[in-house]
Amino acid sequence: ILRDLFHTDCNAVLKALQPIFQEQGMTETVHNWEDHGYLVTYIKKNGSFANLRIHPHGLVLVDLQSYNDHMKGREEVDQLLNKVEERMKELFHGNIKRVKRLPAILRGGVIDRYWPTADGRLVEYDIDEVVYDEDSPFQNIKILHSKQFGNILILSGDVNLAESDLAYTQAIMGSGKEDYTGKEVLILGGGDGGILSSNIDQMVIDGCKKHMRKTCGDVLDNLKGECYQVLIEDCIPVLKRYAKEGRMFDYVINDLTAVPISTSPEEDSTWEFLRLILDLSMKVLKQDGKYFTQGNCINLTDALTLYEEQLSRLYCPVEFSKETVCVPSYMELYP
Amino acid sequence: ILRDLFHTDCNAVLKALQPIFQEQGMTETVHNWEDHGYLVTYIKKNGSFANLRIHPHGLVLVDLQSYNDHMKGREEVDQLLNKVEERMKELFHGNIKRVKRLPAILRGGVIDRYWPTADGRLVEYDIDEVVYDEDSPFQNIKILHSKQFGNILILSGDVNLAESDLAYTQAIMGSGKEDYTGKEVLILGGGDGGILSSNIDQMVIDGCKKHMRKTCGDVLDNLKGECYQVLIEDCIPVLKRYAKEGRMFDYVINDLTAVPISTSPEEDSTWEFLRLILDLSMKVLKQDGKYFTQGNCINLTDALTLYEEQLSRLYCPVEFSKETVCVPSYMELYP
Repeated sequence: ILRDLFHTDCNAVLKALQPIFQEQGMTETVHNWEDHGYLVTYIKKNGSFANLRIHPHGLVLVDLQSYNDHMKGREEVDQLLNKVEERMKELFHGNIKRVKRLPAILRGGVIDRYWPTADGRLVEYDIDEVVYDEDSPFQNIKILHSKQFGNILILSGDVNLAESDLAYTQAIMGSGKEDYTGKEVLILGGGDGGILSSNIDQMVIDGCKKHMRKTCGDVLDNLKGECYQVLIEDCIPVLKRYAKEGRMFDYVINDLTAVPISTSPEEDSTWEFLRLILDLSMKVLKQDGKYFTQGNCINLTDALTLYEEQLSRLYCPVEFSKETVCVPSYMELYP
Repeated sequence: ILRDLFHTDCNAVLKALQPIFQEQGMTETVHNWEDHGYLVTYIKKNGSFANLRIHPHGLVLVDLQSYNDHMKGREEVDQLLNKVEERMKELFHGNIKRVKRLPAILRGGVIDRYWPTADGRLVEYDIDEVVYDEDSPFQNIKILHSKQFGNILILSGDVNLAESDLAYTQAIMGSGKEDYTGKEVLILGGGDGGILSSNIDQMVIDGCKKHMRKTCGDVLDNLKGECYQVLIEDCIPVLKRYAKEGRMFDYVINDLTAVPISTSPEEDSTWEFLRLILDLSMKVLKQDGKYFTQGNCINLTDALTLYEEQLSRLYCPVEFSKETVCVPSYMELYP
């Protein structure tokens, strides 16, 4: 950012920077808006190009785009940007408010490293391998390897859980304050096997059983063990059946989905679904039973407040408390 | 990404997408590389523009850039991208490998939300306020407010510590396994006051004392308390003086700097500095004393290995162990 540029200043910036791109043997196309400054496009024979956008209020943007060969490309890019920075500092005698370079964005590669947060922020993960990528009848299932987080389960584009995320599993189980010995526990969702799971999507279980063993251990190898059973079906009819049979649990752990992001609980079917699950869960929960579930990104305050309001609208009165944890792979705090 | 496009296919993509941009009243400039596909620039009267890059191997990129008024702009952008996606799916009968939209990048605003990780990945923080922004004789000092992490201290562009990062302070103090009662503790660096500090930059202390109170409490209000003293000076002469005087400590906590990223320890002065600090610290440490320090982003494996090698080259033999923690605001795991 510079101070306000008048038309003559815009032109001075253009004149100062032109030689840098021309030296590269780039072909120039200048568009002059008069009242909105300049857009200059520089095209190279090898298919790469640069945009130079000069705004009259003082913002100068340089975007470089090239295909492949990016390590070599990066050095060239750095040299070019160094020259731009130098020339600008000369022109304005060092009087520049901010100079910022952003890391290159890699698009169209085999590995996609960009998985935005729940509140829509751009985050680049250190993904180095696509471990699993399949479409089930319900969703796209990806397991990607991150150098620091281990394998990460991504369902239809949403980061679900990584092998690093024991903190998530611990929190949704009551942060070590519960004694589950001899207790009846019903877990909804959680196809990653982090807790133990009843899930509708066999393919998630198949993928996780093979590639997320740090999370699920061997619990998914057999759907029935001495003290657990994994049901791969819609949990609503199961809950209804249990309620009808009068089967009661000490704990219900709902790991199905995060609090919906939408803030129209009356219209949105995810909210409807959530209330139904909550009501049914309360029906199969013993008098002093506990219900654990996840919230969502701490920044989605409206959605989280709405969720708390839903709790006061259940058919039976409930008490609740909340806790916020840092789930490493989510790149955000999570209540 | 599409399957391989021949020249005619590139042209078909161009012909299919052209009307979408032309409907917007945008002025078109087409560059045809023949062997590298097309770059088409669309310019709008209001100063915004779009780049359409069609690669012959099947990657089609659409970049949209506009100034200000970004909420209104976003809706328009979504509509335009929906049309592009539709048209492409029609053209290739749904046979498209991947469709991806990235969140908009905001540049040149009062608030800069992009602070890359130590291993160079692009990360957008939820910054909503610039709390403090000053240049000291040593560095640029920024304290930015994040909705989820609280105030974040950023020194010369590097995320240093946020109010959410008690985990960092706990880890560098030995994760609660040490009893500091009645012990002599020397803390190097840490101008944020998270531990307690001897720092060279008065302005960091002034900024933190006012804006990072969740981290430092009141320890920075007075540089000398009943059981602590804050020295604002270069720690090397202080360490040398203590070594000469024979003053010994139970603990030395080095919070000066992360392990250098460069992997040429013989040439890089940061490594030199690190070895000097290590050697001097060992000299003021009691026989059974402990030295705590931070590593760096877990992905910088080469640098971390080099650091361990340095430890074996000290003038006295040392034993060491390491621990990895999740520091919320760093967006990466940190040993």
